[in-house]
Amino acid sequence: MDAGMDTRTDSPRRWLGAPLEQLPTPALILDQAKVRGNAERMRERCRALGLRLRPHVKTHKTLEGAALATAGTRRGIAVSTLAEGRFFAAGGFDDILFAFPAQEWHLPECAALARQLQAFQLLVDSPRGLELLRQNPLPGGKRWLVWLKLDCGNGRAGIRPTDPEALELARAIARGCPEVVTLAGVYAHCGNTYGCGDIPAVQDVARDTTNAVLAFVTRLRQEGIPCPEATIGSTPSCSHPVPEMSQLTEVHPGNYLFYDLQQTQLGSCRPEEVAIRVLTRVVGHYPHRRQLLVDCGWAALSLHGRDRGPPGCAAIEGHPQLRLVGLTQEHGQVEAVDGELDFQRFPVGSTLALIPYHACATAAMHPVYFVHAGGKVVELWHPTRGW
Amino acid sequence: MDAGMDTRTDSPRRWLGAPLEQLPTPALILDQAKVRGNAERMRERCRALGLRLRPHVKTHKTLEGAALATAGTRRGIAVSTLAEGRFFAAGGFDDILFAFPAQEWHLPECAALARQLQAFQLLVDSPRGLELLRQNPLPGGKRWLVWLKLDCGNGRAGIRPTDPEALELARAIARGCPEVVTLAGVYAHCGNTYGCGDIPAVQDVARDTTNAVLAFVTRLRQEGIPCPEATIGSTPSCSHPVPEMSQLTEVHPGNYLFYDLQQTQLGSCRPEEVAIRVLTRVVGHYPHRRQLLVDCGWAALSLHGRDRGPPGCAAIEGHPQLRLVGLTQEHGQVEAVDGELDFQRFPVGSTLALIPYHACATAAMHPVYFVHAGGKVVELWHPTRGW
Repeated sequence: MDAGMDTRTDSPRRWLGAPLEQLPTPALILDQAKVRGNAERMRERCRALGLRLRPHVKTHKTLEGAALATAGTRRGIAVSTLAEGRFFAAGGFDDILFAFPAQEWHLPECAALARQLQAFQLLVDSPRGLELLRQNPLPGGKRWLVWLKLDCGNGRAGIRPTDPEALELARAIARGCPEVVTLAGVYAHCGNTYGCGDIPAVQDVARDTTNAVLAFVTRLRQEGIPCPEATIGSTPSCSHPVPEMSQLTEVHPGNYLFYDLQQTQLGSCRPEEVAIRVLTRVVGHYPHRRQLLVDCGWAALSLHGRDRGPPGCAAIEGHPQLRLVGLTQEHGQVEAVDGELDFQRFPVGSTLALIPYHACATAAMHPVYFVHAGGKVVELWHPTRGW
Repeated sequence: MDAGMDTRTDSPRRWLGAPLEQLPTPALILDQAKVRGNAERMRERCRALGLRLRPHVKTHKTLEGAALATAGTRRGIAVSTLAEGRFFAAGGFDDILFAFPAQEWHLPECAALARQLQAFQLLVDSPRGLELLRQNPLPGGKRWLVWLKLDCGNGRAGIRPTDPEALELARAIARGCPEVVTLAGVYAHCGNTYGCGDIPAVQDVARDTTNAVLAFVTRLRQEGIPCPEATIGSTPSCSHPVPEMSQLTEVHPGNYLFYDLQQTQLGSCRPEEVAIRVLTRVVGHYPHRRQLLVDCGWAALSLHGRDRGPPGCAAIEGHPQLRLVGLTQEHGQVEAVDGELDFQRFPVGSTLALIPYHACATAAMHPVYFVHAGGKVVELWHPTRGW
């Protein structure tokens, strides 16, 4: 349900080559070297563990980001919406896993993608989901490629691997109708890593999730049920993988291409690895209330993280003495942490770089991302959106 | 910085005429009769007070909504970004007030809009802002049309009318360089109405703001300074105007076209006047944790209102016994208020209509709005976005 519409009288292309300071604000900017470094480090981590990396594209939703994350192969990604599925398929990507439990109303589009791609893959977490696929076989001898979605403690979608129904469902997928449906693997998202306070806690969740998945796969193998693939994902767990993860076949982190303040707090990355900023300008001094006003509101940042500790929705790069205390649609209010604000250091028109709390949410607010290197805009990335 | 891009393999136009139940979810749906009723009631309220209505378009950002809100005249709107300014000017709108304090880096685009339109209007709240305009005169004998932005207690942009500097600034605008800059009026946003608990409190803020603006205008007139216009705005204050407001020349509410859960809580509207919903479907039953999963996450709703009382980010229409307890990017978790959930009443695939806490934030997440009447989609509205 995305309706693209170019309503610009000017084009963002005019900013290619421009110094960052000239960009209209607010602007989502990405440090090219950091994005590339983040992509490479995750690949290296997976190589070291002998794991395939299936980058989840829902944070950036761009062909450019996904090409980088797949090292140019354009093979093997996870998407969160069918709009992403269509967009990446049209952009030459293949082996796309739709990481949302497939529903009846998704089937016509899923079938179209399955026909178009060599490997369009689906999640199922209920007998009902399987029954849908069995009742709607793909034409031409193609089979639905199904991953059984497991809930290993995250508490969102998925069937719990310790539930007797989980084994039954896996059996039914693998054996029920093999000419229609193939069991590709088992899939778990460990979003519960986001509730952790430090790296050891993240690793405990990663280990528990991995072990739960592997124990389940072992039971399948004991029954002679082929289950070629096993994957877990979340940026915190994949940023500090545990050795047990090397027994999986792949992982599917997504946020790591950009990282953000939340990931810094979780220990997923060092502060200098965060590639995303929202560039904003000071638009006013209000000394009677000791505040600066900036031209970044929730429309450019989102309200994510408002209730998560002192920096709130964003940290202000290079200025730990400042904090963002209020956001309306297009205005942000900035105060000094200790109450004293040196207005002369922040003249009207000067820029501030905001490090967003949640890159996925901030990226969702922007129709274009400005990628920079050497202080200049070198690429424009255009996300898809909608459903 | 909007980069429109049609990445759809299908088009939302295919849904024209379709019953709502067939829409892909999540979908932003608008009740045509309610939107029209809200537009008409606000016009009627303003007529009764002898006030011009300058609808603020930042909630919906659509030509269709603004045409409705201006009763088809396409004259006299307020915008929050220059992207909106360009979009509405290109769409045939005139008399556009850019309701954000004008900055140096806005000037080239503002000048282009001022040349194009009969009346492109600007806010100034500092001597610096005025100086900028004086140093950048419009060509062809046109003048910058300036509203002095007053802060009457809202504490965001604006100069306080009781500050001696406010009067000085008004004098400087009106007299400093009349062939370059014209003082059109004074402008106050009473966003502090959003902190009120009931209608009398909202009306107290509206009265205080109006009186502060009028007292300031009186002082200008005593000095012989022409200030033809005086406006205040905010949906709560304009939904329950106080008689004093009839002494203003115009008002500029914005959210009232849709209304939302927050406005219901503030008393701005009756629940049955809220025109916006996010349509979502049940995608799973998780009895072991007594939860339904729906296909609406923060990507379709925003996290606004999460910390504002029991319903959180949205109420679930017709089901006061349910509440939305968790939102991730594309998933929403629904529980029963009292812990017991009758799953049979909510089969997988059944639709729920979410009444968003904050319509401005929810609308910002959607590339298209589905307008319905008689249970069918009758119009598609396409918002602009970016800066």
